This record gives sequence, structure tokens and C-alpha cells, in this order.
Amino acid sequence: MHTVCLDMEGVLFPEIWINVAKKTGLKELERTTRDEPDYDKLMHYRMDILRREGITLGDIQAVIATLTPLEGVPEFMEWLRMRFQVLILSDTFYQFAMPLVTQIGSPTIFCHNLVTDEEGMISGYRLRQPDAKKAVVAALRESLNMKVIAMGDSYNDTSMLMAADQGVLFCPPQNVIDEFPQFPVALTYEDVKRYFTEANNRF
Amino acid sequence: MHTVCLDMEGVLFPEIWINVAKKTGLKELERTTRDEPDYDKLMHYRMDILRREGITLGDIQAVIATLTPLEGVPEFMEWLRMRFQVLILSDTFYQFAMPLVTQIGSPTIFCHNLVTDEEGMISGYRLRQPDAKKAVVAALRESLNMKVIAMGDSYNDTSMLMAADQGVLFCPPQNVIDEFPQFPVALTYEDVKRYFTEANNRF
Repeated sequence: MHTVCLDMEGVLFPEIWINVAKKTGLKELERTTRDEPDYDKLMHYRMDILRREGITLGDIQAVIATLTPLEGVPEFMEWLRMRFQVLILSDTFYQFAMPLVTQIGSPTIFCHNLVTDEEGMISGYRLRQPDAKKAVVAALRESLNMKVIAMGDSYNDTSMLMAADQGVLFCPPQNVIDEFPQFPVALTYEDVKRYFTEANNRF
Repeated sequence: MHTVCLDMEGVLFPEIWINVAKKTGLKELERTTRDEPDYDKLMHYRMDILRREGITLGDIQAVIATLTPLEGVPEFMEWLRMRFQVLILSDTFYQFAMPLVTQIGSPTIFCHNLVTDEEGMISGYRLRQPDAKKAVVAALRESLNMKVIAMGDSYNDTSMLMAADQGVLFCPPQNVIDEFPQFPVALTYEDVKRYFTEANNRF
């Protein structure tokens, strides 16, 4: 039995910040790493907006809890967990991810931590380690003698995909498809099941 | 959010082989590593008995599926998964463990693989790596920058407990208590919750 590492946003759930922006009406929060490649700058920009608007972590969590899995995800997760050991690897924060993963049976997730102040405002964040998704896949293969399939949708998943025995792209943007032609592209969970089954049979 | 690694047999479920022995009436299958310290010899002894009796992996899985979690485990797992990321680390086989873990919401489990022949008889086994539980805890701490609590009930868990930031013994035999006085001993899941919360607050 082999291990599957899945990105969360764009693969199992919609993008968190984009939807927080929509639901709060704060269009400034739609800014992503595509607009501001410096992640630390982007996070401070977001925290400044939330503080200015008096939006606490609890408020954000209430918004996040209204997001639901992408269509077909509960059935896909059920199929997956009967056949593979599953880890969700995400660059989001536990405080954001927990209201989501509980909706799909609380699979194990490794991500990062937010820091809050006495008023419950987000005051900082702690990344567990640099290139955290890739580090997990590498440890599973190199230290724990596992075969690993990894799937993600975007640029920040590609180092994890390259570190895996089999990488799969799920509904990626065209520039990622063009730059990483070595990975099969799944457009539906039926595609995913086929790629995963093929890899499993090959291992 | 920190990571908890749990042994399965004796901590979440009753011992598998002992119960297979009981339910099949084959007392010879009660033999454990306490009686035969050479694990490979023990496994071949077990496989020989099963082959002699014509018992397939499917038959064993049907027996295992009748085992239920220890009292209080579903509530404990619910408590645990809201507060920690959980991995089950076991020296059993996926083919035995899967009918059990599905009863408690399919937490991620890392263990070993059985090999079967064309008739469905168990014909061999493949350990993922030596000292597999300890290897996972060490990788989480050393390669993935995590804090880890590990809990088990017996001698073969102690290397994993020593590798963790906090080890806890759950209802262990007296010789393990005597030999490893550095680990707190939990006799109930309420004890466990207290120890885990204390460790979490200290990290």
C-alpha cells in the first residue's frame, strides 16, 4: 500500500484567500503570489488589511467554514483512502485548514501555523520549514522507504511533484502545463483515479 | 499544531493474532514474540498453520473485521483529531489493519505488507524497513521540523517513544514500566488527554 500526497486548495477545496475576499467584499484580499511574489510582503499586506477592518481569526474561520469541497471530492476521498495512505500537504495554515478538512473526514494534514494576539487578530505566521511539501515527499521516500504519488494544481506544487515517484497535475494553469510536460494532467477525479491506479500497478 | 503517533494494537484495538486465535479456535496462533523472539520464525510458523488449515487472507480479514475498537476509542480519536495531526504506526500489515482503521474514520496508518499466492494464502511478508515506527518519528522531527508525541503499550514501541519529544505508555505490562521509568503511564484515555495536553502546552 503506497502513499498519496495531495495539495488542498485547487485540488480538494477552492482557494481560501480568494473566497475570503469574495465573502468579505474586500477585493484587496484577492492579491496572490502571482501579483506579489514576496510571500512575506503579501502576508503582511493581508494582515494589515484585516487589522484595519477589525477582522479577527475567528471571523475568517467563520467565512472559511462556509466553503465546501469541490464537486466529487467526498466520493474521491472515499475511493482514495481505501487504496492508499493519504497525507494532505498544504502551504496554508492549520487555523484555516481545520474547518475544511473536518468536512472530508479529517485526513492528516501538514501545513503552517498562524500567530494571533490577545484580541484574536492575526499578528504573524510560522512556516514549518522552507519548501515544506517537497520535504515531506522526500522524507517519505528517502527515510521511510515509501513509494509516493503527489498531486497539485500550481507552480508551488511542482517541487513536490518532482520529488515523488509519480507526480500528477490537477486542472493546472496553462503555463504550468507548458513548463512541466513530464507530469500527466488530470481534469477530473476519474482521470486522477486512472493515473493513480496505473502508478500503483507499476510500483 | 503538533503530531501524535499512536501504536494500534493494545492502544486502539485488541491484539490481532490473539483474537484470530480465539475466533478460529486455533490455540497455536496465540504464540507471540514473547514466546518466539525471532519474528521471521514466528511469521513462518503462523503461515504454516494457516496453510495447513486452508485459511486464506480473506478468511483472516473476515475474522479481523469482527474486532471492534477498545472502549472509548471513537470519542478519544475525535478529541485527538481536533487538536493534533495523527499517524497510526503499527508493526501489523495493511491487509489486517484496513478492516480496523475504517471503523475509526480511516486515520493515516503506516505499517507493513503481506504477500499472497494465487489461492489467496499468505505466502510471505515485506517489512517496510527495520524499526519502522521509530524511523517515522525520527523523520518527522529531524527532517520535517515537527514536535511529536508517541504512545504505545509494549516493548516494541519503546524506541519510537524514545525518539519522540514526549513518549507515553498506555496500559503497559509491568516489565516495560520498570525498564522505562522515564515515560508517564496512562491507564485511561482521560490520562492520555491530560498527558498530551501538557506536552502540547510545553512545546
